[in-house]
Amino acid sequence: MFNCLVKNMLERAVKLYPNVEITDRKPSGERFSYTYKDMHKRICRLANVLGDLGIKSGDGNMGDRIGVVAWNNHRHLELFLGVPMFGAVFHSLNVRLSLDHLSYIINHAEDEVIFCDPDFLPLFEAMEDRIANVQHFIIMTDEDKLPETKLSPVSSYEDLLSQASPEYTFPDFDENTPMAMCYTTATTGRPKGCVYTHRMQYIHALTAVAIGGANDKSIQMSMVPMFHMLGWGAPYFCTWFGMKQALTGRHPDVATFAKLIEEEKATDVMGVPVLARALLEELRTGKYDYSSLQRFVAGGSAPDLALIKGYEDLGIDFRQGYGMTETAPLITLSLIKGPLEGLPTEKKQELKRKGGLIPPCLEWKVLNEKGGEVKWDGKEIGQLAVRGPWVIEEYYKEPEKTAECFKDGWLYTRDMVTVDEEAYISVVDRAGDLIKSGGEWISTLDLDDYIMRHPAVLEAATIGVPNPRWDERPVSFVVLRPESKGKVTGDEIKRFLLDEVKVAKWWIPDEFIFVDEIPKTAAAKFDKKTLREKYAGEG
Amino acid sequence: MFNCLVKNMLERAVKLYPNVEITDRKPSGERFSYTYKDMHKRICRLANVLGDLGIKSGDGNMGDRIGVVAWNNHRHLELFLGVPMFGAVFHSLNVRLSLDHLSYIINHAEDEVIFCDPDFLPLFEAMEDRIANVQHFIIMTDEDKLPETKLSPVSSYEDLLSQASPEYTFPDFDENTPMAMCYTTATTGRPKGCVYTHRMQYIHALTAVAIGGANDKSIQMSMVPMFHMLGWGAPYFCTWFGMKQALTGRHPDVATFAKLIEEEKATDVMGVPVLARALLEELRTGKYDYSSLQRFVAGGSAPDLALIKGYEDLGIDFRQGYGMTETAPLITLSLIKGPLEGLPTEKKQELKRKGGLIPPCLEWKVLNEKGGEVKWDGKEIGQLAVRGPWVIEEYYKEPEKTAECFKDGWLYTRDMVTVDEEAYISVVDRAGDLIKSGGEWISTLDLDDYIMRHPAVLEAATIGVPNPRWDERPVSFVVLRPESKGKVTGDEIKRFLLDEVKVAKWWIPDEFIFVDEIPKTAAAKFDKKTLREKYAGEG
Repeated sequence: MFNCLVKNMLERAVKLYPNVEITDRKPSGERFSYTYKDMHKRICRLANVLGDLGIKSGDGNMGDRIGVVAWNNHRHLELFLGVPMFGAVFHSLNVRLSLDHLSYIINHAEDEVIFCDPDFLPLFEAMEDRIANVQHFIIMTDEDKLPETKLSPVSSYEDLLSQASPEYTFPDFDENTPMAMCYTTATTGRPKGCVYTHRMQYIHALTAVAIGGANDKSIQMSMVPMFHMLGWGAPYFCTWFGMKQALTGRHPDVATFAKLIEEEKATDVMGVPVLARALLEELRTGKYDYSSLQRFVAGGSAPDLALIKGYEDLGIDFRQGYGMTETAPLITLSLIKGPLEGLPTEKKQELKRKGGLIPPCLEWKVLNEKGGEVKWDGKEIGQLAVRGPWVIEEYYKEPEKTAECFKDGWLYTRDMVTVDEEAYISVVDRAGDLIKSGGEWISTLDLDDYIMRHPAVLEAATIGVPNPRWDERPVSFVVLRPESKGKVTGDEIKRFLLDEVKVAKWWIPDEFIFVDEIPKTAAAKFDKKTLREKYAGEG
Repeated sequence: MFNCLVKNMLERAVKLYPNVEITDRKPSGERFSYTYKDMHKRICRLANVLGDLGIKSGDGNMGDRIGVVAWNNHRHLELFLGVPMFGAVFHSLNVRLSLDHLSYIINHAEDEVIFCDPDFLPLFEAMEDRIANVQHFIIMTDEDKLPETKLSPVSSYEDLLSQASPEYTFPDFDENTPMAMCYTTATTGRPKGCVYTHRMQYIHALTAVAIGGANDKSIQMSMVPMFHMLGWGAPYFCTWFGMKQALTGRHPDVATFAKLIEEEKATDVMGVPVLARALLEELRTGKYDYSSLQRFVAGGSAPDLALIKGYEDLGIDFRQGYGMTETAPLITLSLIKGPLEGLPTEKKQELKRKGGLIPPCLEWKVLNEKGGEVKWDGKEIGQLAVRGPWVIEEYYKEPEKTAECFKDGWLYTRDMVTVDEEAYISVVDRAGDLIKSGGEWISTLDLDDYIMRHPAVLEAATIGVPNPRWDERPVSFVVLRPESKGKVTGDEIKRFLLDEVKVAKWWIPDEFIFVDEIPKTAAAKFDKKTLREKYAGEG
């Protein structure tokens, strides 16, 4: 039977779009560009390098794991495609993990080789004695000379490529061969490994384009680090559909993103809400021509209404995506359904804020505490369970954690959601974060959103704390904007929530704790576990 | 592992688009409409009916075959979805086949049950004694009383459904379970069976939408009979993506199509060039509001430039699709690539006339007589070979024919094509129709197109005839428009080809034979085999 393999993506790009560009920012800041044709030759060289290093490919079973940590650059993209096409497993390392977790996952995945940008060498030097399984470090730099390092053995990516043949015939193999893996950014316990097969990413990429509406006229510039959930799949679907890819290079800041949109005429941008907000403010300065920009997809956490409205006021279609490492990553996208197209703009923006729709291919159910399906009223809360062609069915080498989260092929997401009459799914909270106060649910995510609508508030994170009368009550940590520090009180925020946002009285947090910063997880989300520990320690 | 099954399509439509309409024209001409929610209930009833009839479902292997022949109507759509979801095989019968071929395929497929519209009963009555394998005939009619027939046993679709329970849980099974089959409309020898699995149609539908750009705002009205290559896949992808479907009912004529576009606000229409041409003339009368119409996809044979320009002058994006029964059916679609978007309109229309691009998923090569790949110059001719997730890998129970056309998983299409510098594939001719004159190729399809550009010509079909000096020479059969009959000579057409179309002198047919009609195959293509026999018999 025909096998659905990642190689079809690059091979199609080379045949149909040989001269379409991939651009990058060199560490020097200069623009770099080459074409799919150029990239294909280098990926052939890369495959020969992997063979020379003794890397073993898989066929139904798992090939050797290749750890990779890099900025969003063209060499990173080469590894995204080349490692799977060779038959090995691209292990994307999230540099925002703690050293403990990073060394743990490198060991747990048994990475044979690490490819890394020079900026990340200190990370590996700091845990050198803890990752003895790594046989080889390959440094990706523009410089002729490699940086000084105590790691060994070390080679230069460019040297190895230049010595390798540009001819390589990528083999066929079983489509269920693993092509990549990511670990979850666990807030409790160890990160868990999610292994993706060729078939999974193949069907995921087709679906992402089928619902997203991008095509070979699109120009993608992602603010999402490629080490976050495979860059949300963009390296695959952009290549397959012949899109121009504008990569953002080393240490990009918001001005870099805005400038790239102008210079590369980006049509599609993806990013987390925090960066989306910063980019919006940058675009509003009027310093950039962003007329090419058609769509913004935000994911990672929920966007607020002001953000959605802000983009759409500039004529940019704003969409909220929701996903997980376990689903590589797509679960919902906040498209406006055909039958709702006639709604007023504000209603549509409210829908986009609330959540999104399940795409074709995924099966889903939302189960309440009794194990029954919730009512589709936008109110009853239940846990979302999904299964489908790109949803993993186990954690890598973790039978116990697998048994906790998977049952009969279904992934129990631990995300608590509501479903409205039109099947829009809204994430209310993580299972552990939701507050039960006097027998009723309070969503900390909603409260965070409401508090952040106050003009003086930069960030807000709410947790539940034990309460003798109500079982649990909300307490919010608040970061004020620099100019408002010391000038806004908890009472003022309480008044704002009651009078302006019209929050129910019993939802109002018992306490507002002003802090300089909210701790974040490696996925850039508020780290509520640390906040709870902090509160318990001080309380 | 998760199985990719047709049931996801309907289940998604019911959950996300319960109230989106499917409309139909009753035999009385009245409008009929119901929703995905209504249809789902009836399909549950249908599954119970199939179970009661003793139909066996498959799981990896082949379930029982259900023969179906009907107009494009809602019951037909129910069978498209319900039979595969039950686990049986939807055998789509092309009523344009000869009785010999029709009875042959019903026997060869071993159809257990036949579902048919009353209009097609005489077909089955005429071959009753030749299809003894059929256990049951189920007639789909709006009338309370079944029409008189000598077929037996006979039941009413509506009666059976009304007696069945509306509750049914569609099972999971192996995605490689056959879900449908079609036979080729062979011009030589017996029709050959092509069996499609759930997985094949699933990936085909995703890809069709990913490249085609339709979405849940689209309203599909197809002029393609649903018994032609599964209606080009529309029943599946339209349902999956929640599109409104406007079905055309019994004996639709061109005025019906034009009226439906206006009444149902169709955005997408599909059809063969002959009907496309008729519809264009109808729309041009100014009697209809066709402002909703965005896209026209033509397939089955090559559209001419005037047709493409005609639609695009009305603001409708015209696309040429090319496919085969063996590929269920998509092989190419004439999209304008991103990098060519800036070409002048005439150049883009010329590209659309020439051919199309291979979509994601398919692998392809074009081999010349020496077995090497042709040069991508738009000139060198070779045979197209394809493989991919929706390409069959054998003919049903035909090991010899399978060995002729398939090798190492590749389908050798017998279509002779060129590839231009931009990878646009143009079908020059069927392997047997291409003319080799004095060592050089002449495309009869191109000649047909050139001759049909003459304003007095309605149809033209060219064949190669033996010639002692040049091996082969072209001879053209020509049908003139009624008002031009007897007024246009072969010399006039010859002059037109030389002076207006600028056809090379050695391509000019040796003879123009004026006829009242060109014989057609069951796929509505010019039947060149019959023309060759006719010429040989008369020559």
